[in-house]
Amino acid sequence: MDKKLNLTSPAIFIGKQGNGVISFGSGQPDLPPPREAIKGIDIRHDLRYGLIQGCTELRESLANEYPASSAENFVITNGASEALDLIFRAMDNGKVLLPRPYYYSYPPILKYAGMEPVYTDLKQGRIAIEDFRKKIKGCKAVLINSPSNPTGRIEAIDTLKEIEKVTGELGIYVVSDEVYKDIIYERENYIIKGKHVITVNSFSKTYAMCGVRVGYLWSPDQKFVNKIIEMKTHTSMNTNLVGQDMALRAMRSPKSYVAKQLEIWRKRRDIIYEGLKDIGLDLWKPEGAFYVLPKVSQPKKFATKLYTDYKVIVYLGSWFGAPGRVRLSYALDEKEIKEGLNRIKDCLKKI
Amino acid sequence: MDKKLNLTSPAIFIGKQGNGVISFGSGQPDLPPPREAIKGIDIRHDLRYGLIQGCTELRESLANEYPASSAENFVITNGASEALDLIFRAMDNGKVLLPRPYYYSYPPILKYAGMEPVYTDLKQGRIAIEDFRKKIKGCKAVLINSPSNPTGRIEAIDTLKEIEKVTGELGIYVVSDEVYKDIIYERENYIIKGKHVITVNSFSKTYAMCGVRVGYLWSPDQKFVNKIIEMKTHTSMNTNLVGQDMALRAMRSPKSYVAKQLEIWRKRRDIIYEGLKDIGLDLWKPEGAFYVLPKVSQPKKFATKLYTDYKVIVYLGSWFGAPGRVRLSYALDEKEIKEGLNRIKDCLKKI
Repeated sequence: MDKKLNLTSPAIFIGKQGNGVISFGSGQPDLPPPREAIKGIDIRHDLRYGLIQGCTELRESLANEYPASSAENFVITNGASEALDLIFRAMDNGKVLLPRPYYYSYPPILKYAGMEPVYTDLKQGRIAIEDFRKKIKGCKAVLINSPSNPTGRIEAIDTLKEIEKVTGELGIYVVSDEVYKDIIYERENYIIKGKHVITVNSFSKTYAMCGVRVGYLWSPDQKFVNKIIEMKTHTSMNTNLVGQDMALRAMRSPKSYVAKQLEIWRKRRDIIYEGLKDIGLDLWKPEGAFYVLPKVSQPKKFATKLYTDYKVIVYLGSWFGAPGRVRLSYALDEKEIKEGLNRIKDCLKKI
Repeated sequence: MDKKLNLTSPAIFIGKQGNGVISFGSGQPDLPPPREAIKGIDIRHDLRYGLIQGCTELRESLANEYPASSAENFVITNGASEALDLIFRAMDNGKVLLPRPYYYSYPPILKYAGMEPVYTDLKQGRIAIEDFRKKIKGCKAVLINSPSNPTGRIEAIDTLKEIEKVTGELGIYVVSDEVYKDIIYERENYIIKGKHVITVNSFSKTYAMCGVRVGYLWSPDQKFVNKIIEMKTHTSMNTNLVGQDMALRAMRSPKSYVAKQLEIWRKRRDIIYEGLKDIGLDLWKPEGAFYVLPKVSQPKKFATKLYTDYKVIVYLGSWFGAPGRVRLSYALDEKEIKEGLNRIKDCLKKI
């Protein structure tokens, strides 16, 4: 084991798996994609450019899942990442309200787009609406993420409705990253709505196909959608056609696929949440996605020792704007989660 | 036929094909991809994130094609477009020398990246080295494109070597877009070299798989390559894995695939070049790629009439910085090219 570990970003753990290592690091499903998405797929022989906006059939299929929508309101992108990147680049500078802790790519995405983050600190992992109301003024947009990576929390429907109202009145964009919308333990997903709303989503987490890179954005603001299409015409052109074919096939897989996965996630959630509580850690109960963000004293020392002496990977909370915490993804089978918990317990005793 | 045609960009011709229309518009091969890239491909069941930099095997395979290279020098991207976009975004402002006529996405890519184009006008479709030497001073980079879309010309090896020298001395980046490197009628491709060179390429044109969106960049400047990887980590993550698998299989297809296609392109080149000359148009002889850029009087009137009365699509030269010209792609079978030429002849008589 590498005794010197410079914990600068998640990238330092690349290639450090296998060999008995238990990784609570990477945020992606370990479960298999739906068979329908990969089995017997006939790669189309016509591999010429597709529509920049995305394959019509896929967008039509998505339009059935969103209220008062047509295929025109969607752009298929290289994962949710490209959707976010294009959205903020299309805004031409300004401030963006960002709840903290946040997904670790948000601040660089805003920086690259020439936008400035304004932070509102979450309370118990959820938006504090008073602070939100205060800080939203003067912002061009807010970027919300429910269920959240890294907190594992979901926003109350009342909060989401209040956000709709406040931003609608002020004419501020709501960019809603809902990539975990199909992994919610408490209720159905609430789709935030309004002329000023741009929703970002993906096939990655729902269908366990992160590496295929198919995501999308949805907005009733057709002018904004068209601006994104114009930009994408030059910056990456159509999203890969084979991936779009796979995404469409995934959408047509039996609904039971998603339901079954949710039950697996719930069971794992219970194991890790109870396990970490039993160890004595202070953490929020995950309501969606597959992350926990417990408090630990000396997170750097803990994460380093945990990896070097116990072969367990966790991410620093500070990478997500949450110093004093570490992030664990529970995209692991139960046995591994339990073994990981044992090692964490042993490690904490030694610190 | 739509009698009112507002010729603002190539996008206006989307969905206007079929129905007897002959399109010299879109710049992409009409030929089939290598069978190896699509037949019997086994979609991997593990669709988790791949390396941001790109699949190791694919990069190793590319390293064999570039001098003094290793897999570390490459980043696999969502087509050459994303490579260009990332390269200029990573440069943090400044001026870029841009030979004109240019590929029509170059100016917007520079604009989105916050960079400013400085133009050097081509002579006979090739770089005028005196003007180049004068204007390169004060630039952070130059973007060259040989073989060129839209001129169909290639740069002399002496010119390329002079560019290597001048930019090397001044420490100016050379971004060399070589997506048509395998479609050259006159000689082998000359790979421009130097610590300050960033080459952009793609599987799209060589293997007729534009819609799969797999391109790459290559540079010996490891610091710059790492900056691109860091950026791509947040803006789009890995390039789609299935596309990378297909690209690797395409690279392993028999070399005769590329050679056979080149002969088809050459034959078409001869037909369109001789045909347009016979009609009396003034144009450069294409040496690579699959475009001609003839002079016409009243290009807008010509392109409009040609489409509305003769069902033939050509692009305005002004979209490529070449007013007074129109661009024709000859990615069409011979019969269609000949029929298109007849219609062009008829149309010109009526103007």
